Amino acid sequence: MEIFGTNWNETDMKDLKNRILDTAAKDLEAIERALSDNLQPNLDLVSKVAEHILFSGGKRLRPLLMVLCARLCGYRGGYEHTFSVIFEYLHAATLLHDDLIDEATLRRGKPAAHTVWGSSTAVLVGDFLLARGLSIAAATGQPKIIEIIADITENMSQGEIHQLQRKGQLDLAEAEYLEIIRCKTAVLFQGACRISALLAEASEKKEMGLAAYGFHLGMAFQMVDDLLDYSESTAAIGKSVGADLKEGKLTLPVIYALQKAGTAERKKMEQIIMDDHFSAKAFETLKGMLRQHGGIAYTEDLATEHITKAKSALNLFDASETRDILMDIADYAVARKL
Amino acid sequence: MEIFGTNWNETDMKDLKNRILDTAAKDLEAIERALSDNLQPNLDLVSKVAEHILFSGGKRLRPLLMVLCARLCGYRGGYEHTFSVIFEYLHAATLLHDDLIDEATLRRGKPAAHTVWGSSTAVLVGDFLLARGLSIAAATGQPKIIEIIADITENMSQGEIHQLQRKGQLDLAEAEYLEIIRCKTAVLFQGACRISALLAEASEKKEMGLAAYGFHLGMAFQMVDDLLDYSESTAAIGKSVGADLKEGKLTLPVIYALQKAGTAERKKMEQIIMDDHFSAKAFETLKGMLRQHGGIAYTEDLATEHITKAKSALNLFDASETRDILMDIADYAVARKL
Repeated sequence: MEIFGTNWNETDMKDLKNRILDTAAKDLEAIERALSDNLQPNLDLVSKVAEHILFSGGKRLRPLLMVLCARLCGYRGGYEHTFSVIFEYLHAATLLHDDLIDEATLRRGKPAAHTVWGSSTAVLVGDFLLARGLSIAAATGQPKIIEIIADITENMSQGEIHQLQRKGQLDLAEAEYLEIIRCKTAVLFQGACRISALLAEASEKKEMGLAAYGFHLGMAFQMVDDLLDYSESTAAIGKSVGADLKEGKLTLPVIYALQKAGTAERKKMEQIIMDDHFSAKAFETLKGMLRQHGGIAYTEDLATEHITKAKSALNLFDASETRDILMDIADYAVARKL
Repeated sequence: MEIFGTNWNETDMKDLKNRILDTAAKDLEAIERALSDNLQPNLDLVSKVAEHILFSGGKRLRPLLMVLCARLCGYRGGYEHTFSVIFEYLHAATLLHDDLIDEATLRRGKPAAHTVWGSSTAVLVGDFLLARGLSIAAATGQPKIIEIIADITENMSQGEIHQLQRKGQLDLAEAEYLEIIRCKTAVLFQGACRISALLAEASEKKEMGLAAYGFHLGMAFQMVDDLLDYSESTAAIGKSVGADLKEGKLTLPVIYALQKAGTAERKKMEQIIMDDHFSAKAFETLKGMLRQHGGIAYTEDLATEHITKAKSALNLFDASETRDILMDIADYAVARKL
């Protein structure tokens, strides 16, 4: 099976995933412990809701990136796992608010928190996780780190507002889509990688290199996430079929195909997109048209370009097991589409 | 008119208010400018919603307290107005989320933001303001300040969750009520006053004195706010009559009266409280009973005690115009009930 112009086959992909998980096993365990140890709410309800969103099968990709990048910079301070939870707490906070906003009923195959505990609790536990993340950031004692993290949260909320504002609108341009995914996804990846360099007191060159790695990885990650909505096996990813479209979210495969299609074809696609209750058959038709007009391939190519840039940003570091696994993660970010 | 066992009459009260506003006029202007200058969102929609909540007649009490306390500590850094906006942004963020949670339709006599722009926008602009507040905190470059502010936001979200969790429950105890208002209101006042001392690099004694002033002022302020729901002129404060009860919020006047009333009287009160659509007449009956069973007087007394403690905490500072106005603000926090 050819993916993104590379020769990954399904076995290679599983090997890649297993290699990452094996190499990172100890870090992932330590991250899991830190996520639980640093939660410390006063109220049982907060624990319950926070644990529901935090311990429901998340990949821990953001904290893992911070831990690995810190190691790549030679950090020996011993707090990498503790500080890494910042990125999972911020991520979980936005998931709580986003699921509410998108009226999503499922998250990783489990009922979304707001459907179990109500919208108000989801809003407030989101606020708590955001605040908890910033408290732990404050514990680094480094104003620059805290500034970056506060800035990330500003960007993320603005990205979400931007997306919300353009919900259901067919004239979303590629540049606007890219700005939205930069804010809502890439800045958090970028921050997780960049802050590790600050923690390790690495050179500015390394800081910028890791920021670039995180940024490009984040952009590619979101593009592939958006592609997954149009893949063959949406059920396997714990989302409903065509969830993005049903939430009125136009993503790159659609934006590109709409732009490339002729008038008649575009009209047909628009009809399906604007129909709140499109059938499974209509969705299959749409998927065919996205492929036909190059929306899938274009998104795959752009994601692959970002991954290439992410990997080349790591070249300023000497070869090491840690650098290898960061390269593997970059490959897997696009390959996971399988 | 006798209020809180003191001899304030209506004219005295107006004089007090005017004296505060006259003395603070320049600071209030500078705060207003800083609130607008430091907002800097990328999106027009964020500006619009943030401005709706920020510039709708707020008293700017929290930033004013920070500015005045900084001056009391001899701060000359020139950033007091800039940093003071942190406390108004955090306050506005919680108002946006709270109005949504309480399904409040009015805020300061204007339509609540979520009724104009929808719940999702209210959630996300709240997140933005929270993040903006923390960004400005990060700009102080002092990890301790940032830590306190992150801790405030954690406390505030937990106070709101606690309140939400006990919504509509008749067995809320006084101690639990006090813990809720400490988290949701007093910690922000306390933080605004305490941080000014850190900014001014004042002694720990001064820091703790101002923290005590802010804490007691905040406790009294919330108690009086809760009393206002049962005052004669609820219309004048821009809230609906009996709004707290309709939102299922039991506050101290009610908690105390329920506890002191005999079985039959308590049953009657409980019936009114639990009726989602109580009549204006029933509400008047309830108000009479709160008064009769000492709920109003007890809350007034406790608020007055906190104000006495707040004022005495200022005694470690030499007499000055700034100390006078902080004393006036403390008096006015309870006297504003008129």
